[in-house]
Amino acid sequence: MQFIGRKHWAIAEGYIPAQSAFTEPALISHETACILNAGEQAAQVRLTIYFADREPVGPYRITVPARRTLHLRFNDLTDPAPVPRDTDYASVFESDVPIVVQRTRLDSRRAEVSLLSTIAYAEP
Amino acid sequence: MQFIGRKHWAIAEGYIPAQSAFTEPALISHETACILNAGEQAAQVRLTIYFADREPVGPYRITVPARRTLHLRFNDLTDPAPVPRDTDYASVFESDVPIVVQRTRLDSRRAEVSLLSTIAYAEP
Amino acid sequence: MQFIGRKHWAIAEGYIPAQSAFTEPALISHETACILNAGEQAAQVRLTIYFADREPVGPYRITVPARRTLHLRFNDLTDPAPVPRDTDYASVFESDVPIVVQRTRLDSRRAEVSLLSTIAYAEP
Amino acid sequence: MQFIGRKHWAIAEGYIPAQSAFTEPALISHETACILNAGEQAAQVRLTIYFADREPVGPYRITVPARRTLHLRFNDLTDPAPVPRDTDYASVFESDVPIVVQRTRLDSRRAEVSLLSTIAYAEP
Repeated sequence: MQFIGRKHWAIAEGYIPAQSAFTEPALISHETACILNAGEQAAQVRLTIYFADREPVGPYRITVPARRTLHLRFNDLTDPAPVPRDTDYASVFESDVPIVVQRTRLDSRRAEVSLLSTIAYAEP
Repeated sequence: MQFIGRKHWAIAEGYIPAQSAFTEPALISHETACILNAGEQAAQVRLTIYFADREPVGPYRITVPARRTLHLRFNDLTDPAPVPRDTDYASVFESDVPIVVQRTRLDSRRAEVSLLSTIAYAEP
Repeated sequence: MQFIGRKHWAIAEGYIPAQSAFTEPALISHETACILNAGEQAAQVRLTIYFADREPVGPYRITVPARRTLHLRFNDLTDPAPVPRDTDYASVFESDVPIVVQRTRLDSRRAEVSLLSTIAYAEP
Repeated sequence: MQFIGRKHWAIAEGYIPAQSAFTEPALISHETACILNAGEQAAQVRLTIYFADREPVGPYRITVPARRTLHLRFNDLTDPAPVPRDTDYASVFESDVPIVVQRTRLDSRRAEVSLLSTIAYAEP
């Protein structure tokens, strides 16, 4: 596939629990944006984070190489600012080439891990 | 992004368990509609709740300010009427500007928390 | 809303675990198709179930009244045949008026309940 | 339905945990792509797997007979290569006839099973 996807994506739900019952990295509570760039050109992605009661933060600048997937942990974002824990947020992705975006959360506030995943909204 | 999203959204599934194994607000069983308004103008949203065996209730009137996200708990709705617990429902959102809607449920009837999340249906 | 939705929907995943750790009906393992008919006319829906290794079964005939939601348990279908347990299936919905379809599974094979939910595929 | 679906689908998220708390096949951690071919002609599907830091692998060649569903476990793929465990991946499906693709993961790293499911991205 040369091109699959869209350039604009939105995820209306975001929340990173501050708490985790584990210290093992794979099981710490986290939110991930899974980005697929199936094309032949690197994708330059601008990510903006929206909040309930303050101005948006961003853009975070992310590169996804050609023919690669990037599973980006919101927990790891630092520039221009880390994503606050225990806080509702939403996110918008703007790419210069078509990509596919999906969102996953692993919640391990309790010893029993919960998972959720949702395809992001693709602007036609 | 000036505009991302659609004006009409529907969520066919809704159910707030009356029971919770917790009293901590973040872990009480709840249903949330996450609404993102990434635009430059406040969104006036009309929400209607549909049931299996009675007439729809609404509109609930919700404002999402420009460049903000609102994570609306169905549990908290009161006007024109609270959403009954342990009852199947569905919901339709009509906004005057483009928004993005996603739905999440945290189910804590059992001590082990379950999560689900789904992008809402966007009317083209 | 007079009309929201589409007439043709598909759910590629289906599986009803035969096992349940509970006898309480709300917690028995089940699969639900949540159907919303927000329009002013009753929806006549034809449901067909597809399998891995045998001919499809159907149509199951379902009516969703105007301005109502129906949360249909696949477990309860009997005519023309019950849905076999522990068996992979998929489903296609054909309605005479626009509807919205979403799918939910509650899996209680283990004492810890798992939930999943997905918007169905809407044929444009 | 003669035709429902699309020919190109993408799933941006993939991850098969190496660990399982169970040996029973239905409860071993796994990722499934559920494919529905509701049409009258067998679907020839080419599946490509994308990674974070190496070239894509594929195509895997899959046939879904007419009027059948195939719940394909990524765990079972071997030709041209097995899918590595504990590794982020993404996948693209190209079919010669319209199909519907949905993704499910059962995570049983812990004794409490977690489930997630997402409709794949359908290229219009």
